Amino acid sequence: MKNTFGSSVAITLFGESHGRSIGAVLDGMAPGIPVDEEFIRHQMDLRRSLSALSTARREADEVIIESGVFRGKTTGTPICLRIENQQARSTDYDKTELLARPGHADFTAHEKYHGYEDAHGGGHFSGRITAGLVAAGAIAISALREKGILIGTHIAACGGVCDRPFGDLGADIKALSSMPFAVLDSLAAEKMQAAIAAAKTEGDSVGGVLESAVIGMPTGVGEPWFDTVESLLSHILFSIPAVKGVEFGDGFALAAMRGSQANDPFRMQNGRVVTESNRAGGILGGITTGMPLHVRVAVKPTPSIYREQQAVDLAAMKDATLSIVGRHDPAIVHRARVVVDSAIALALCDMLALRFGTDWLAPGKEARA
Amino acid sequence: MKNTFGSSVAITLFGESHGRSIGAVLDGMAPGIPVDEEFIRHQMDLRRSLSALSTARREADEVIIESGVFRGKTTGTPICLRIENQQARSTDYDKTELLARPGHADFTAHEKYHGYEDAHGGGHFSGRITAGLVAAGAIAISALREKGILIGTHIAACGGVCDRPFGDLGADIKALSSMPFAVLDSLAAEKMQAAIAAAKTEGDSVGGVLESAVIGMPTGVGEPWFDTVESLLSHILFSIPAVKGVEFGDGFALAAMRGSQANDPFRMQNGRVVTESNRAGGILGGITTGMPLHVRVAVKPTPSIYREQQAVDLAAMKDATLSIVGRHDPAIVHRARVVVDSAIALALCDMLALRFGTDWLAPGKEARA
Amino acid sequence: MKNTFGSSVAITLFGESHGRSIGAVLDGMAPGIPVDEEFIRHQMDLRRSLSALSTARREADEVIIESGVFRGKTTGTPICLRIENQQARSTDYDKTELLARPGHADFTAHEKYHGYEDAHGGGHFSGRITAGLVAAGAIAISALREKGILIGTHIAACGGVCDRPFGDLGADIKALSSMPFAVLDSLAAEKMQAAIAAAKTEGDSVGGVLESAVIGMPTGVGEPWFDTVESLLSHILFSIPAVKGVEFGDGFALAAMRGSQANDPFRMQNGRVVTESNRAGGILGGITTGMPLHVRVAVKPTPSIYREQQAVDLAAMKDATLSIVGRHDPAIVHRARVVVDSAIALALCDMLALRFGTDWLAPGKEARA
Amino acid sequence: MKNTFGSSVAITLFGESHGRSIGAVLDGMAPGIPVDEEFIRHQMDLRRSLSALSTARREADEVIIESGVFRGKTTGTPICLRIENQQARSTDYDKTELLARPGHADFTAHEKYHGYEDAHGGGHFSGRITAGLVAAGAIAISALREKGILIGTHIAACGGVCDRPFGDLGADIKALSSMPFAVLDSLAAEKMQAAIAAAKTEGDSVGGVLESAVIGMPTGVGEPWFDTVESLLSHILFSIPAVKGVEFGDGFALAAMRGSQANDPFRMQNGRVVTESNRAGGILGGITTGMPLHVRVAVKPTPSIYREQQAVDLAAMKDATLSIVGRHDPAIVHRARVVVDSAIALALCDMLALRFGTDWLAPGKEARA
Repeated sequence: MKNTFGSSVAITLFGESHGRSIGAVLDGMAPGIPVDEEFIRHQMDLRRSLSALSTARREADEVIIESGVFRGKTTGTPICLRIENQQARSTDYDKTELLARPGHADFTAHEKYHGYEDAHGGGHFSGRITAGLVAAGAIAISALREKGILIGTHIAACGGVCDRPFGDLGADIKALSSMPFAVLDSLAAEKMQAAIAAAKTEGDSVGGVLESAVIGMPTGVGEPWFDTVESLLSHILFSIPAVKGVEFGDGFALAAMRGSQANDPFRMQNGRVVTESNRAGGILGGITTGMPLHVRVAVKPTPSIYREQQAVDLAAMKDATLSIVGRHDPAIVHRARVVVDSAIALALCDMLALRFGTDWLAPGKEARA
Repeated sequence: MKNTFGSSVAITLFGESHGRSIGAVLDGMAPGIPVDEEFIRHQMDLRRSLSALSTARREADEVIIESGVFRGKTTGTPICLRIENQQARSTDYDKTELLARPGHADFTAHEKYHGYEDAHGGGHFSGRITAGLVAAGAIAISALREKGILIGTHIAACGGVCDRPFGDLGADIKALSSMPFAVLDSLAAEKMQAAIAAAKTEGDSVGGVLESAVIGMPTGVGEPWFDTVESLLSHILFSIPAVKGVEFGDGFALAAMRGSQANDPFRMQNGRVVTESNRAGGILGGITTGMPLHVRVAVKPTPSIYREQQAVDLAAMKDATLSIVGRHDPAIVHRARVVVDSAIALALCDMLALRFGTDWLAPGKEARA
Repeated sequence: MKNTFGSSVAITLFGESHGRSIGAVLDGMAPGIPVDEEFIRHQMDLRRSLSALSTARREADEVIIESGVFRGKTTGTPICLRIENQQARSTDYDKTELLARPGHADFTAHEKYHGYEDAHGGGHFSGRITAGLVAAGAIAISALREKGILIGTHIAACGGVCDRPFGDLGADIKALSSMPFAVLDSLAAEKMQAAIAAAKTEGDSVGGVLESAVIGMPTGVGEPWFDTVESLLSHILFSIPAVKGVEFGDGFALAAMRGSQANDPFRMQNGRVVTESNRAGGILGGITTGMPLHVRVAVKPTPSIYREQQAVDLAAMKDATLSIVGRHDPAIVHRARVVVDSAIALALCDMLALRFGTDWLAPGKEARA
Repeated sequence: MKNTFGSSVAITLFGESHGRSIGAVLDGMAPGIPVDEEFIRHQMDLRRSLSALSTARREADEVIIESGVFRGKTTGTPICLRIENQQARSTDYDKTELLARPGHADFTAHEKYHGYEDAHGGGHFSGRITAGLVAAGAIAISALREKGILIGTHIAACGGVCDRPFGDLGADIKALSSMPFAVLDSLAAEKMQAAIAAAKTEGDSVGGVLESAVIGMPTGVGEPWFDTVESLLSHILFSIPAVKGVEFGDGFALAAMRGSQANDPFRMQNGRVVTESNRAGGILGGITTGMPLHVRVAVKPTPSIYREQQAVDLAAMKDATLSIVGRHDPAIVHRARVVVDSAIALALCDMLALRFGTDWLAPGKEARA
């Protein structure tokens, strides 16, 4: 399977940046989950991030629910979510159509699709395609929330500035849910925004690190070989454009520790098995421990910059010079945050449905009455 | 799918550490690929790593080819590779059978399998299960080599010591293929071994970072959404026990760069499109650029250490103290190297077969005559 | 995977009969395949079959191509095909909303979705959902045709009348492609239509048998175990509503033969291996022989009839009587024909892409220039 | 995926008829299911069917459980089941090695595997490979039985003789479970055996129809599109060698009925919704109704017959004459019966695990204590 992720709860993405519409089909979601269109809009707005920091392209990004929702609740059948492309300004892109832009997928798309690809605005490789992921993710996030499973992501680092680490996860996740610029320490947030603005002034861009936490996951979810929790989460996270690294718990830092430091001691707490530390990020042997999940994602800097760059002309097959004139973000890390939340939610719904059945996320029998 | 990875070329693992046998079924491999039993043995030996650094458990690890190979070549049908467990010393483990060891999967296996799991020696979660992956990987590595696709992995860091970075990839990969302790700089190798020995003396363990390079990959392999090259490689790499981080190209370091640094400039070279640098690790938009693939993997320290640790008794559901007496490695990073090579090879065979058909890896028509 | 079929070329269906829109996402189709909107319309018309024989519901069924097609050709990225529901007359259905109609999926949908399903007009179980399959199938049929692979289906039996058997397959397939009522013998066609009309007069309905032939398939496609050609074709055919039987070659008739009758003798013909008869339907050991594929499909009578029927009221959980007043077909077998063609085409594209690579269906290198 | 079936409970087959061993890996089976080696042996014996009717090849067919079973119960991890090939008499086959035998997969295997296949005794296409399916199926059948789901299959027709139809399903399924020649009417059984003997005398072979019933299935299992119960059952059934037709409920006979005959009237019975007849075979809209499942399978005559047949020599690529001297069955339908039971059980376990979670088949919490 290619443009589909998941085996029990599955998402399929479609669309090109400047095509007619983009969207997602979310299949296998349990019936009876309330679909809060206001929350979908909220998530879509976080992705668009209409601040001064971001691209000037402003589309309503209204999510049209084509199927799978009836009387405000999921029916259990495939949910098609569609977003029309309204302000496609293809003229900005025409002159670079055959230029392979550094850091972009133009060249690899050309090799894969032999020139038949719709390269305008990155086509199917555009970050815009994540809008479908966010729309579907909003439903997944709602479903998980009903079961007490909450996800939060902050910008741990951006432009040389670090946020404070996660503290009280319940409070931090709650706070992050409404922040357009998801940084726990407001001073760090200001500095990051200043760093982004500085990069913009210099016609350049910045990347960053996103850190996510999930609370409320049951124990025993995931598989020992191949479909470990880390495997499935990294699979979906690495399909988000610009993600080049994923680590769980203390991740790469664990590689430099001794075993006596890295091991999380077990102990009983109120009749449940817990670990005193959580360097494993809530996953041992690929399976959830019941402790919070921790994952960190490296986001490379936006490849579109306003400096002259060395490119190649794919039509003439010769060296060329690229000067970008379209609308582009000096940073996407703050917008990618909600994409990461959504990707995690979708993967967790799939794992939970596999483990506990397709109805696990549905309202209880009492709620159905 | 759970204990199976791959859609066109697929591997299924089975077995428990102290069960009757362990192994793998490799399905979808093209017909006609020479199966060099000597090379399989070589790879198995690298995994066992019979140096003073490693566990005293010495099994022949002879790979029995049960099916799918005829007259020294793959038939195209499923290849069952089996390794008998000969020296299982279960008495070492009996006393800890119900203790959830820190850093191990005992607790999560217990939650997932409700106590029906075979916990001896880690059971199905044991690093020993990677033997099947290495046996299957040896065939995948051979198949890729015939097409000029070569994989090499070195220990980039271990015990606070760093190896030199990759230089001439062709030469480095060749050199690594026969090294039992895969470090390019022999002085660094000595220091790492000293660090491992020191940890052992202190009843402790160390982790490390493995860095792999792949040369010879064609362009245009991988998918834009979900089945990106990064997604599929990380999926299989994160199912190797102890792996807690995966990054491609400059990975997490990219998050701290400006776009002008991170972008790899394109240019023409002998009629082919190349990039001047390769910070993207040979992958743009999830698809191969034709430049070498670069991936780094964080391996946590071996969780089995000889220090007293805090555990829980899963039978009595109370706090307990763990003192390990079995045979355990102070480091596995040097042994995990060949597992990483194998995992990468298997994932690449799958991607190539999907892109170019199941016969792409088979000998050319001329070779068949 | 549920509402998705295929691993290399995959189709996902969405939509409810009386919802906002229905459609399909077709993923993995090779780039560069001409998308002939006129042909899509032709196929959609065959499915709607606006004759006196069929339902009075007449919708334009215009297929909107949302993505994956650029300048009249496939791009290689997911193709979203959408059809808006324009004339949904939900009042016809309201009174039966909670009645489980005999032969319909109302009861099973209710059990599966706990009452959250959109039951209007059969919801996601409606035959109308096949419109998305036909739209996607039209692209698959076009792609196969470029490679000389042609599919034709006729109504072999309906209402007690049998069509003549297939003769010259090339000529028959060509003739069938433009027939709205796909019967090779025109006299048989008239009799079948009379039988359908008679059933309608009596407030009843009829079923039928569809027989398909495929010419031009290469040898060596399919897998020995589980993904045999028969397995994959029956998998998709049995998801067409009303299909209750599938047989290949002489099918059930083979069960009554002796081996000496059933075996197809091999012989050489112009340097190629052929069989003198083709009772195996072009498939041996689950793999194509290069002879024409033959498959027959049993279609049960339309369950919606105008006679009073015994039903249950799912809200009150008590016996009830059903009298249908909506628009319903006395037969769907003539409309199902194009659905069968489409399903076969989609499954064959998937098998061919797995065998020969995702580009096999793409235009040759010369055509791209 | 090719030699693997199932997404939650999955089976992978390996082996060649005259190779070292054959077998299966059964993955995803719930933990705690009792593994009764006596029952496995019983099922293996039914498949071998050591009567005068069947092939003289008598192997112990002892199933070696390599993994996934601990203290007599499934652990939840992959179960490798292996059967050694002990009496491979390859000399019988050597002279026909390059002859494409009519009705066999020699030619298609040769096309698919380019001559690298192990053709001895049919290699990976041999009916012998079903031994792995039966071994795995025995565990699936046991698991289902614990939940009150029972499967029975009889020979509905063979050699022109028909068995009586199913009557009291509970009693019939119980009676069939121990019959080596599964025919409900003992007089019909005698006639069928006489017909098989007559075919043998004439150097010929016969086929037959197998009819299965399943009682105890819950409602609401299966998916509306693509993964219907019919789709998944036919998928696995059509991978059994010699199966050329599959029908559910009244199957092809439905195609000749009127809707008023074909529809099963609903009514309430003891608070449950039932149908008065069961022409739909327990499946509506692809989803279980809770009524018994009914499926019929057409088995073609054994292709190996002792009459001279027209073949081709694949080495010389010229016409040839085939005279078979090995050991071959004049009928396999009585042996295929247990293969059909096993295939159905495996597919149902997968559907149930997807619907209700991987633990649904595990013993209840009380049983674990």
